[in-house]
Amino acid sequence: MSETSAPVSASQETATPYTPTGRTVPSRGRARASYDRELVHSILDEAYLCHLGFVRDGAPVVLPTLFARVGERLYVHGSTGSRPLHAAGAADPGLPVCLTVTHVDGLVLARSAFHHSINYRCVVVHGTAVTVTDPDERRIALDAIVDQVVPGRSRDSRPADTKELAATAVVRLDLDELSAKVRTGGPNDDPADLSLPYWAGVVPLTRGHAAPVPADDLDPAIPAPGYLGSL
Amino acid sequence: MSETSAPVSASQETATPYTPTGRTVPSRGRARASYDRELVHSILDEAYLCHLGFVRDGAPVVLPTLFARVGERLYVHGSTGSRPLHAAGAADPGLPVCLTVTHVDGLVLARSAFHHSINYRCVVVHGTAVTVTDPDERRIALDAIVDQVVPGRSRDSRPADTKELAATAVVRLDLDELSAKVRTGGPNDDPADLSLPYWAGVVPLTRGHAAPVPADDLDPAIPAPGYLGSL
Repeated sequence: MSETSAPVSASQETATPYTPTGRTVPSRGRARASYDRELVHSILDEAYLCHLGFVRDGAPVVLPTLFARVGERLYVHGSTGSRPLHAAGAADPGLPVCLTVTHVDGLVLARSAFHHSINYRCVVVHGTAVTVTDPDERRIALDAIVDQVVPGRSRDSRPADTKELAATAVVRLDLDELSAKVRTGGPNDDPADLSLPYWAGVVPLTRGHAAPVPADDLDPAIPAPGYLGSL
Repeated sequence: MSETSAPVSASQETATPYTPTGRTVPSRGRARASYDRELVHSILDEAYLCHLGFVRDGAPVVLPTLFARVGERLYVHGSTGSRPLHAAGAADPGLPVCLTVTHVDGLVLARSAFHHSINYRCVVVHGTAVTVTDPDERRIALDAIVDQVVPGRSRDSRPADTKELAATAVVRLDLDELSAKVRTGGPNDDPADLSLPYWAGVVPLTRGHAAPVPADDLDPAIPAPGYLGSL
């Protein structure tokens, strides 16, 4: 693999925060913004999908999309016939995108309707998506996209063959211009509202999974793999 | 309320599907696309937030945003100082947006890496967000946004006062040009892969909530309201 296509930069220190820019400093709620690298990574790594935004014919388009993080790079894949990936390949020097990942952690009920909110963690990444052509980087990205959903799974499935690789576009978005935004804690009612007779607090949301459902045509001798237990 | 600001169109029949357009017919996976009105409503109504996309300085921006559906209209609110809402008010005749809601229902593990997928339901709405100025429609929208998160809650909290209303922008997006996309079921492995020794199937994802956590300063005599039990 060439130096330029190495997906992980060894010189990147996780302790160094990302640098805010004009478009990653929010116009509202600045106290909730963060550029902490480990926080950003953890929010991204917990997600099954992102919402990918791009501009088509002057109008915004937002599509749920599988993705993966490999070091300081995000990868998105799809059919070579899909619109955003086709645009990323056709555009020079790439396609401006905004990639957003959000987790909803709780419902925040305040005494006042105005202060109702949700507890959440999100990362918003701005940048230019470029098509990955290096075969090694493409394979790393495709494995990572499988492992983003089920860690360890890429080693326990048939890798893409030549035909499948030819049908798959991979685009890369560097983690460079981005911010996290996090809300935690209880409601922020106005002091004058504290004596109102309404319940106030947080409803924590939970996320989990049920027992794996084998495919109808699965050989019953094949047990559910151990890595499903750590989801 | 004036006729034009009525948020629910009584003449709208839920049995009538939405009309596909050039940008709501997907370039890939057309078999998964749907324009069924009840399906679209159910996907929207189950969500705590949407991802709102708009264009700023020529580049896409995607932000997680609270919203609500009232009949055939979606409402988004926010500070009058927030970027998209300010843009919607400043722009004439409104701000082009794409509003997307996605639920992840399961992880689909195929024998081949290529056929890994997720089961999901999403709605993608295209249109122009316009600022709502009618006071009655604004109140209906704000109540609906609270009730979108916790049904019934708007009647059990202090309504917005004049100052709060002045600080809150409400924008509307009509449900007109949109599509749903749904994937269900097991993996779609190639016949040649069925005998491979890899587990295949679906990991269903679950979503729930933990016991409500009262605010630290809540009067202990106020019990958790019954509508929290139906979340």
